[in-house]
Amino acid sequence: MKEFRVPYETMKTVFQQVLQKHGFSTEKARQCAKVFAYNSLEGIYSHGVYRFPRFVEYTLKGFVKPDAVPEKIHSAGAIEQWTGNLGPGMLNASFCSNRAMEIAHNNGLGCVALGNTNHWMRGGSYAWQAAKQGYVFIGWTNTEQNMPAWGAKQSKLGNNPLVIGVPWKNEAIVLDFAMTQFSYGKIEATKIKGEQLPFEGGFNREDQLTKNPQEILETMRGVPIGYWKGAGLSLLLDILATILSAGLSSHQLSRQEAEYGVSQVFITIDLKKLSNYPSIENSITAIIDDFKSTQLIHPDSPVKYPGERVVKVRQENLNWGIPVDKTIWNKILAM
Amino acid sequence: MKEFRVPYETMKTVFQQVLQKHGFSTEKARQCAKVFAYNSLEGIYSHGVYRFPRFVEYTLKGFVKPDAVPEKIHSAGAIEQWTGNLGPGMLNASFCSNRAMEIAHNNGLGCVALGNTNHWMRGGSYAWQAAKQGYVFIGWTNTEQNMPAWGAKQSKLGNNPLVIGVPWKNEAIVLDFAMTQFSYGKIEATKIKGEQLPFEGGFNREDQLTKNPQEILETMRGVPIGYWKGAGLSLLLDILATILSAGLSSHQLSRQEAEYGVSQVFITIDLKKLSNYPSIENSITAIIDDFKSTQLIHPDSPVKYPGERVVKVRQENLNWGIPVDKTIWNKILAM
Repeated sequence: MKEFRVPYETMKTVFQQVLQKHGFSTEKARQCAKVFAYNSLEGIYSHGVYRFPRFVEYTLKGFVKPDAVPEKIHSAGAIEQWTGNLGPGMLNASFCSNRAMEIAHNNGLGCVALGNTNHWMRGGSYAWQAAKQGYVFIGWTNTEQNMPAWGAKQSKLGNNPLVIGVPWKNEAIVLDFAMTQFSYGKIEATKIKGEQLPFEGGFNREDQLTKNPQEILETMRGVPIGYWKGAGLSLLLDILATILSAGLSSHQLSRQEAEYGVSQVFITIDLKKLSNYPSIENSITAIIDDFKSTQLIHPDSPVKYPGERVVKVRQENLNWGIPVDKTIWNKILAM
Repeated sequence: MKEFRVPYETMKTVFQQVLQKHGFSTEKARQCAKVFAYNSLEGIYSHGVYRFPRFVEYTLKGFVKPDAVPEKIHSAGAIEQWTGNLGPGMLNASFCSNRAMEIAHNNGLGCVALGNTNHWMRGGSYAWQAAKQGYVFIGWTNTEQNMPAWGAKQSKLGNNPLVIGVPWKNEAIVLDFAMTQFSYGKIEATKIKGEQLPFEGGFNREDQLTKNPQEILETMRGVPIGYWKGAGLSLLLDILATILSAGLSSHQLSRQEAEYGVSQVFITIDLKKLSNYPSIENSITAIIDDFKSTQLIHPDSPVKYPGERVVKVRQENLNWGIPVDKTIWNKILAM
């Protein structure tokens, strides 16, 4: 892969220009461009620069409505149900995270369930958004079916990413993970390199677990984390996203021509309302200090808390530019 | 293992008598006995009859205070902080689940964070309790340190069980899982049978993953589900339980002579408050029907949703009695 580096501001400007060329208003183009550029800046290229072309394609096909905004359909105290009206998933998710924080500001905790929305790209970004304002964040999305239940030969579950974040030292600790052990993007990349996966990542045609990426891409049956455990968690996350938002379930998403109209949940907690607020940062620091005080299997590979890498990558990419495959970047420039 | 079957009512009566002999009031003994007998009735023997002797032991050692009850320390709208005063963990957890439902009844959703409590035994039972009353349940507990972070040689994380439940057809769909791939009880039982684990369940002394139960018991380093993913989830669950309850973290629990004073979170949602309440049951049924419509790897092993087995086992054990190892039952009778 021929990589070079594109400055953050350049990437944002290019994305905005492409989006304006394809039917986005200046303001919507600016907002969406910022999300894709910022996800890239923080090192989540798969849901940044490398996902941008598909976002444009989905807009051109009408799956994403550039001008649509979320609407409240029902309020029940500290939980609200909204529809995303098929607007850009990142803007809908960011809006609903803010709305959940407003509810939590008044009620200690708040929940927004959002149906009829689109791919939120990088779930972790909403946890960072909430954490930077002092809120705990718990959220998840459903997806189309791409993972088998335990004992199943067909993928009837989504890999339904779950995100949990807490504020810490003006940054955040953010866990953002899908229910398949590896993303299909990672499996594809491993195949291209001619390598094996480090752990069994899915099933082959003989229903055996395998580290061979080619075999997994033939079945499209990635293994759930923890086998039956991740499969169960995926099912429950889909049920909750669906019933809380009055939205579509994974099985309904997979009957469409593409993945649009997904269901999501955003829960926030306002830490400032808690009795122990002044000591929370120290409490987290003590946990992280102990976590890091372990003996290591590889002395030069320290244990990392979720999200730890982000701060470093963000700074590197701000300094040196965002690494991009030149072929893909040229394709974007030509859009 | 020589097993015979003890009727549910007999088991409950025996447990109550033992507890009354060891300092429990009639009413507290009745409540605790019911929990241990009912967990056994539903097939969760590890946190029913086989855990009962340790519960008595912990009470005699003063780790569990039979008469202590939960007290509210802070209220912030839909989230409350309580202390369990080191009372029986099951009674504290059941109380706080009910309290979270009361809050959700008034606010749509509710959260109780509980510090200074004890082992809740079977986390799933609180999800069943909530689901039977029409509430979604999301809850977790921290534990002492018994699982390594990814890349760590020492166990600095708890296996922190996470429980999610939804009401369905007068029963419930309930996921209840710890962050280690296998419980140490399962690993121990596999060793006694002279077998290997079905999947790699932990690390040996050379820091290699192994299916050999003896090797894992030597290191006490069970593998997290999904490797780095389950380790990350465990860390976040501990941080949240600790800061929301103002309670102890896993690293603090492990500095004590035994695991007591754990931290827990109970979140509930009142489905009756949602706009789509009348259609929720059908929506879940459609998800489960699709889930079960898959081709199977082993045609005689259907896929099961979490908690599905419980209803069948409960009925079998009601009909025929609860299967118990005779030696352990005799030990309980002599307590």
